[in-house]
Amino acid sequence: MCRWIAYRGETIPLEQYVTAPAHSLVVQSVRALESTASTNGDGFGLGWYGEHPEPGLYREVRPAWSDENLRYLCRHIRSHLYFAHVRASTGTPVTRPNCHPFACGRWLFMHNGLIGNWTRMRRQVESLIPDEYYGSRIGTTDSEAVFLAILGAGGDKDPVGATARVLAALTEMVSSNGYHEPLRFTAALTNGHDLYAFRYAANDNANTLYYRASGDNVVVVSEPLDKDRSIWTPVPTNHILIARAGERVELRPFFSEKRQAAE
Amino acid sequence: MCRWIAYRGETIPLEQYVTAPAHSLVVQSVRALESTASTNGDGFGLGWYGEHPEPGLYREVRPAWSDENLRYLCRHIRSHLYFAHVRASTGTPVTRPNCHPFACGRWLFMHNGLIGNWTRMRRQVESLIPDEYYGSRIGTTDSEAVFLAILGAGGDKDPVGATARVLAALTEMVSSNGYHEPLRFTAALTNGHDLYAFRYAANDNANTLYYRASGDNVVVVSEPLDKDRSIWTPVPTNHILIARAGERVELRPFFSEKRQAAE
Amino acid sequence: MCRWIAYRGETIPLEQYVTAPAHSLVVQSVRALESTASTNGDGFGLGWYGEHPEPGLYREVRPAWSDENLRYLCRHIRSHLYFAHVRASTGTPVTRPNCHPFACGRWLFMHNGLIGNWTRMRRQVESLIPDEYYGSRIGTTDSEAVFLAILGAGGDKDPVGATARVLAALTEMVSSNGYHEPLRFTAALTNGHDLYAFRYAANDNANTLYYRASGDNVVVVSEPLDKDRSIWTPVPTNHILIARAGERVELRPFFSEKRQAAE
Amino acid sequence: MCRWIAYRGETIPLEQYVTAPAHSLVVQSVRALESTASTNGDGFGLGWYGEHPEPGLYREVRPAWSDENLRYLCRHIRSHLYFAHVRASTGTPVTRPNCHPFACGRWLFMHNGLIGNWTRMRRQVESLIPDEYYGSRIGTTDSEAVFLAILGAGGDKDPVGATARVLAALTEMVSSNGYHEPLRFTAALTNGHDLYAFRYAANDNANTLYYRASGDNVVVVSEPLDKDRSIWTPVPTNHILIARAGERVELRPFFSEKRQAAE
Repeated sequence: MCRWIAYRGETIPLEQYVTAPAHSLVVQSVRALESTASTNGDGFGLGWYGEHPEPGLYREVRPAWSDENLRYLCRHIRSHLYFAHVRASTGTPVTRPNCHPFACGRWLFMHNGLIGNWTRMRRQVESLIPDEYYGSRIGTTDSEAVFLAILGAGGDKDPVGATARVLAALTEMVSSNGYHEPLRFTAALTNGHDLYAFRYAANDNANTLYYRASGDNVVVVSEPLDKDRSIWTPVPTNHILIARAGERVELRPFFSEKRQAAE
Repeated sequence: MCRWIAYRGETIPLEQYVTAPAHSLVVQSVRALESTASTNGDGFGLGWYGEHPEPGLYREVRPAWSDENLRYLCRHIRSHLYFAHVRASTGTPVTRPNCHPFACGRWLFMHNGLIGNWTRMRRQVESLIPDEYYGSRIGTTDSEAVFLAILGAGGDKDPVGATARVLAALTEMVSSNGYHEPLRFTAALTNGHDLYAFRYAANDNANTLYYRASGDNVVVVSEPLDKDRSIWTPVPTNHILIARAGERVELRPFFSEKRQAAE
Repeated sequence: MCRWIAYRGETIPLEQYVTAPAHSLVVQSVRALESTASTNGDGFGLGWYGEHPEPGLYREVRPAWSDENLRYLCRHIRSHLYFAHVRASTGTPVTRPNCHPFACGRWLFMHNGLIGNWTRMRRQVESLIPDEYYGSRIGTTDSEAVFLAILGAGGDKDPVGATARVLAALTEMVSSNGYHEPLRFTAALTNGHDLYAFRYAANDNANTLYYRASGDNVVVVSEPLDKDRSIWTPVPTNHILIARAGERVELRPFFSEKRQAAE
Repeated sequence: MCRWIAYRGETIPLEQYVTAPAHSLVVQSVRALESTASTNGDGFGLGWYGEHPEPGLYREVRPAWSDENLRYLCRHIRSHLYFAHVRASTGTPVTRPNCHPFACGRWLFMHNGLIGNWTRMRRQVESLIPDEYYGSRIGTTDSEAVFLAILGAGGDKDPVGATARVLAALTEMVSSNGYHEPLRFTAALTNGHDLYAFRYAANDNANTLYYRASGDNVVVVSEPLDKDRSIWTPVPTNHILIARAGERVELRPFFSEKRQAAE
């Protein structure tokens, strides 16, 4: 399991949530509290938006806790919308292209979760990626494949609908032919303006997800960044958090109708 | 383009061909003479056989010329059959899983060449890998895909025939539908006993390949390791070098009948 | 704090103690039990002797638990005397030259411990290294400085006496001028034939050290490699374990007489 | 030998000089034209100033030409004063702390050149670093030692005078006791407001240095970034280029009087 944070709001230095808090993401890389893998030392990544329409990326295979570059970058890079992720690999190699977040055009994506039995499922999942996005697959993770499948399903125009369609297909895959492989999907997606965060699972419990909103600022996290947990609100299972540009945060049930319809 | 060497013979330290000669593979990583990419600094790898039936591997993203570990390992590891490779990427990322050689079970493979327009061809080539070998695809290169396709085409029992079948399929792919993409394949394949080296191209000139044999010892190289080039024999285009366990080196025309039949 | 193992005995693959046991050194890199730093993910290293009089080294900045090269090397390299170390930095950067073990000529050294307030003490400690060994200082750790000081104090001919002299000087440094900086020194030293392991501390408790001997084979470890801890014998504080070539293991009080004499 | 660029002027993205020009610094990392080491693949670094009084740093051991992070950072980071450096090691290890630029407080420094016979000279040069700056020595290069010696000689208040004093001491060291070791010093130094670039040598020819100024903008480079070399002005040997905040570029003879006085 991994840990991540997503921020949208006033322009701030990345350090405000990545390195400064008592239980910051970098602290979570050494010792997470709500993760099955308490050490998240299999690489990390930053993604952020500035003046350029496409996001910046910094990804590295070393653990976040000992990376001097990370500290310098978090102090110096300022952004109104950024992602940060520390990785605990579920089996795929520790390479930069396998570190989150993933970028494609103006979109960024990061993920905490897994598709069970990835070796067996991989080919089916990769078949969801249309040819026009397959050239953007530079790593080998399940997470990157799901991201490109979402873009391929129309994510650029309808990110919520496309994600729902891809998750429906994945849920079908992990549950068909007598399989009950776990599918856990706690993910963030953005185009640089609108932020979407998902908490979903099939055949398993969903990974934790919390948020804190104040005015136009919202932070979404795998686990609270402070010892005072009361200021963080859990995102319920099978819900989506939507923070559109210039709008307040909204929580919506996600995917449950479709599943009921299928039952 | 990359540079590589393959050795089969008496048990010797790896350094004898990797680091010691005047124009050793490590020297070629800084400045190759017969390569379009004169710098081969996009990672490197060693593969060797010892007492264990499966080969050892050491692959690293840093250039060979500055890697202290490489020098220690080449001095201390002794083998009767080993591969070494310095990489000049043709576009895929510089990650350890994208460095050569590639291992699968008791087999090792390394490659110098390319499949033209890999982004477009990739999906077709990957479709040549049967499911049972797709789980062994841990990188994203054309070279690894071709290796697994060869094993999937029966390489374990008939390596020469399987390689010919895969190259026939690839030649068809790069030449069909009005395409004339280059296919260059100068590669080495071994099961720890028998060594096979291929020099082939379609729609392009083949990359260079030389060898030197003395008794049971044979060294196959992308370019001569000594200033005295006269002691090295070129492998002709569309030929295969076969050095079976306990047998002398044999050169054979490769693939040309099939191509004539197709013409 | 770090974790390490040292082995001397029959020639065996490194994997037998580095990767195979239930609580192997690689497992300890993720979660050590008797260490103040439970994660030892700041690089690692292997050092071993083979046919060459000087040892081999493999050192890497990535955590041991995710390094594929480490698994291949531990399976393929066989040795009668080897060291392995996983690092938790006490402040110096995560670089290969700062990873243990350190090599100089035919000698190997590794260390778990620290010299308190290294920034202030460093210059004094480095002044213990004679000019002839200062060119071998390629990193910046306290551990490497102590190693070169030991060699400079005559370690090549009298390793136990030289280590005692250097520790006496260090103990004086950390305790003089009103300072009571901790000095913890749990270390292994070898010339490829004789193995010495030290457990010592001043102004602090000594780090743990255990061993297991059977015939000519001896393994010395920071913490037991098995769940059954009863088969491991603690090395007492301020003792040295000596395993000379072809001789049984011997435990001796170390340094305490000298200190009393000095009092 | 290394290659570097320094920029001071309007706030621009780093890419304008690091990655965009025909003969950009990244192109020079693969093939430099005026360098004895035509490949500068032993790591690289960026240093820049933004809103924080202390500079940002990104240093990496991989070659600049294959580092995806470098491209993202150069596109997204904007600065009015920045340094970039590609390294060809003259012997010290390829580690991040040995990559340029070096930072200390609000100061940045980078260097192309060497102190001949560094192994022998090192201790003398390090003795020029006062204790208060020795804790900032996190690498092992001659360059970092010279930087800290300059700060220790009063560089914070009088950078030109302090550099002259340190170079006088170094010149003495490389020329005394019958030695004629080369000393080459082509370096840039800044506090975030004022930029100083030096071209000096003793016992050898000075490394090349060029600049281009337009209004308040100035770029100083090891070699021209464009095929049209005529728009670049060489900095003469034993000269200093001074670009103080808000002032035009000024070239001054440097150090030559002192040397004549000493003769």
